[in-house]
Amino acid sequence: MNMSQCLRPRSIFSNTSRTIAVWVGLAALTAAAASGGQSRHINAQRLQGNLEKLSEFGRNPEGGVTRLGFSQTEMDARTYVMDLMKEAGLQVRVDAAGNIFGRRAGTAQLPTLLFGSHIDSVPHGGSFDGSVGTLGAIEVIRTLNDGRVTTRHPLEVVVWTNEEGPHFGISALGSGVAAGVLGPEILDRKDEEGLTLADWLRRYGQDPAHLTDARIARGTLAAILELHIEQGPQLYETKVQIGVVQGIVGLKRWKCIATGFANHAGTTPMNRRKDALAAAAKDLLAVRDVVREEPGRQVGTVGYMKAEPGAPNVIPGRVEFPVELRDLDAATIERMWQHIQQRFAQTDKEEGVETRCAVINDIAPALSDPSVQSVIREAARSTGLSTADMPSGAVHDAGEISRLAPMGMIFVPSRDGISHAPQEFSAWDDVANGTEVLYRSILKLDKQMNAR
Amino acid sequence: MNMSQCLRPRSIFSNTSRTIAVWVGLAALTAAAASGGQSRHINAQRLQGNLEKLSEFGRNPEGGVTRLGFSQTEMDARTYVMDLMKEAGLQVRVDAAGNIFGRRAGTAQLPTLLFGSHIDSVPHGGSFDGSVGTLGAIEVIRTLNDGRVTTRHPLEVVVWTNEEGPHFGISALGSGVAAGVLGPEILDRKDEEGLTLADWLRRYGQDPAHLTDARIARGTLAAILELHIEQGPQLYETKVQIGVVQGIVGLKRWKCIATGFANHAGTTPMNRRKDALAAAAKDLLAVRDVVREEPGRQVGTVGYMKAEPGAPNVIPGRVEFPVELRDLDAATIERMWQHIQQRFAQTDKEEGVETRCAVINDIAPALSDPSVQSVIREAARSTGLSTADMPSGAVHDAGEISRLAPMGMIFVPSRDGISHAPQEFSAWDDVANGTEVLYRSILKLDKQMNAR
Repeated sequence: MNMSQCLRPRSIFSNTSRTIAVWVGLAALTAAAASGGQSRHINAQRLQGNLEKLSEFGRNPEGGVTRLGFSQTEMDARTYVMDLMKEAGLQVRVDAAGNIFGRRAGTAQLPTLLFGSHIDSVPHGGSFDGSVGTLGAIEVIRTLNDGRVTTRHPLEVVVWTNEEGPHFGISALGSGVAAGVLGPEILDRKDEEGLTLADWLRRYGQDPAHLTDARIARGTLAAILELHIEQGPQLYETKVQIGVVQGIVGLKRWKCIATGFANHAGTTPMNRRKDALAAAAKDLLAVRDVVREEPGRQVGTVGYMKAEPGAPNVIPGRVEFPVELRDLDAATIERMWQHIQQRFAQTDKEEGVETRCAVINDIAPALSDPSVQSVIREAARSTGLSTADMPSGAVHDAGEISRLAPMGMIFVPSRDGISHAPQEFSAWDDVANGTEVLYRSILKLDKQMNAR
Repeated sequence: MNMSQCLRPRSIFSNTSRTIAVWVGLAALTAAAASGGQSRHINAQRLQGNLEKLSEFGRNPEGGVTRLGFSQTEMDARTYVMDLMKEAGLQVRVDAAGNIFGRRAGTAQLPTLLFGSHIDSVPHGGSFDGSVGTLGAIEVIRTLNDGRVTTRHPLEVVVWTNEEGPHFGISALGSGVAAGVLGPEILDRKDEEGLTLADWLRRYGQDPAHLTDARIARGTLAAILELHIEQGPQLYETKVQIGVVQGIVGLKRWKCIATGFANHAGTTPMNRRKDALAAAAKDLLAVRDVVREEPGRQVGTVGYMKAEPGAPNVIPGRVEFPVELRDLDAATIERMWQHIQQRFAQTDKEEGVETRCAVINDIAPALSDPSVQSVIREAARSTGLSTADMPSGAVHDAGEISRLAPMGMIFVPSRDGISHAPQEFSAWDDVANGTEVLYRSILKLDKQMNAR
């Protein structure tokens, strides 16, 4: 709420807009980018330095990080990021879901332009997923400060809680609460150590009883933007610098339990077994068959199988496994699931096993706002960067918030399309490009939206 | 070494032999058993009481026990059993592999008649596997004491260390060391908590540097007998009371690692995945196909799959799984494994995965001594019990010791053929019958062997 900064958004925006290049096709722009492109406002070196420091929290010997949402490692990283926010002059607050907001006042009474990402990771994940969008957002603020640029809209940098979700089996937890799609029903979920989500929120300094205070009221946000690595091979393989996200695929996740009968692996004849792991193996292959049956970009995954009792000399009596399906079209997900269930029932009959599945995650597809997509596209072109429109196969927090405000996402290339793995990497130049596009998009939105 | 007991083995044995029934076919004997059979010397109630007390160590709420070899729970149970041995007047010692021996002196300078079993269990196992043979052996000593019966041979009750083996992936550990097939090479194996086998032996009060002191010298044993539950359905389903074991199947066990590539489950197209869990699923089904391909009693099992990183939203990059094959014929095991490896190589090619397997356990088939089988058969018939000759599908400690001395095993029925599960159960009458057969077999062997 620092109102002492001078009001000159128009002049800044017009400065910026002078750099907008004429769109002359991909080939010409790629050439421009290869020859250095247009100058960047953001400080690429400062951004890289901060990202490298952040990657020390939960760093693994094989590279990358393990920084689960709701862990001491993530708590330490949050402190580091909050310090960076404060250094950038942001007014920091943490909501009841543990989401961190850093506010920079606007010059007018307008809804907030919100942008940011997350800093939690999957187990043995990479150090770019989430971190680029989070520290890129802080870099945008630093750049505005350096240029003494003010905005009409208040700006807020956000760090969402537990985006990846393996800890409690809920992806996009913080943004889901903020969007009002998750509520107190999640508080009693227990992790493997027997701690509930409520226990963890208390460790994060929050009162779980007030969880719904984290809901963001409709009308308070002007837009939500998120910079992120693509996590897939498209941009990297086609040598395109910026992905303009058309929408985020929906995701539905089930926890399945196959119950057979644990028995002695030496004395039980092959034709007398009720092997839950054999049934789960068939089920995994059935998921894959069904997902591959029709053309399209839909995906399906079984990420683990937990067999009990889990000894080499005992036939597994019980197996837990998750099924995850993703597509831009929720109807496709439902159709695939119907078919998968038929296949599971057939396996149950063949194997003398009973398999039951319960939904543990259901995130609807989220489309980007067309005008926000245009702003991102133009911001990239003004920087001399090539763009491609594309869906996001990964779930993102911005998708949740798209229920409340116009949403847009900026993708930068992932080397070899690898993510959620130690080899996850994005070229520092690509990271800087994406952050510059975020910077220019924020200024452009600030000018265009709620124009008087 | 109590030599004060009087010498009257011959009279006792001839008393017993008077009760030998004429073998008039299964139908007649079943009828005899149903009408009460011949009188038993052993105290069935005392035996049941002790078994019920033992089942309290590691008892699970769902029934049965978890009493892993090398665990605090097993240490407590060992103390209980050693106290029972001392109460029975046995001279107790523990060897360098943790095997417990309780000695009762003989009246002559002869090799030892050894009998006993184990008290460790698989995770979520039953409370009869091993315990019946261990406490049955102690009951035999109590019965001898009650009847003031002396033997020519010294008798030793044995409790073998870590028969089940899930803890360090080595079955029949204590008996394997005693038989000289396992040595100091096993000491550095680490468990999931990072403790080595040497560390555990120290906790058991042993000096790992002296492990090979536990080897039993050839010529020091007259015979090895083991009473055990069948752990399979044959006796229970055919209503036969005593199984006379012809031999113990060989077992070979491999640990396999399938290495694919961990990647984002949302952004990685189905045709670009190197899913190690999908490969492992195919491998499990291949093991089953190969084992089922030819007739015979051979079995093959994959007891678990550990996927890494193991999150619902990450394609598994690495999966560990065991393969276990068992048969009475070692050549059949080798032939199956060759075929399985071909199938694994094919899966690797199809899935872009690399699977490597290493042998972690290799136990040769062990045949029972024909004259010991005859003694058991006659002991059963003398008690009015029906018998069936059968192989053992499960590995047993007695199989290891068969390398040093004539071996025999006595099986009692397992309800519904269930073992290694909480539902594991043997009727108390069957347990008492088996113990009586053990008692009579010991006396008969004592008379027949090394006869002057």
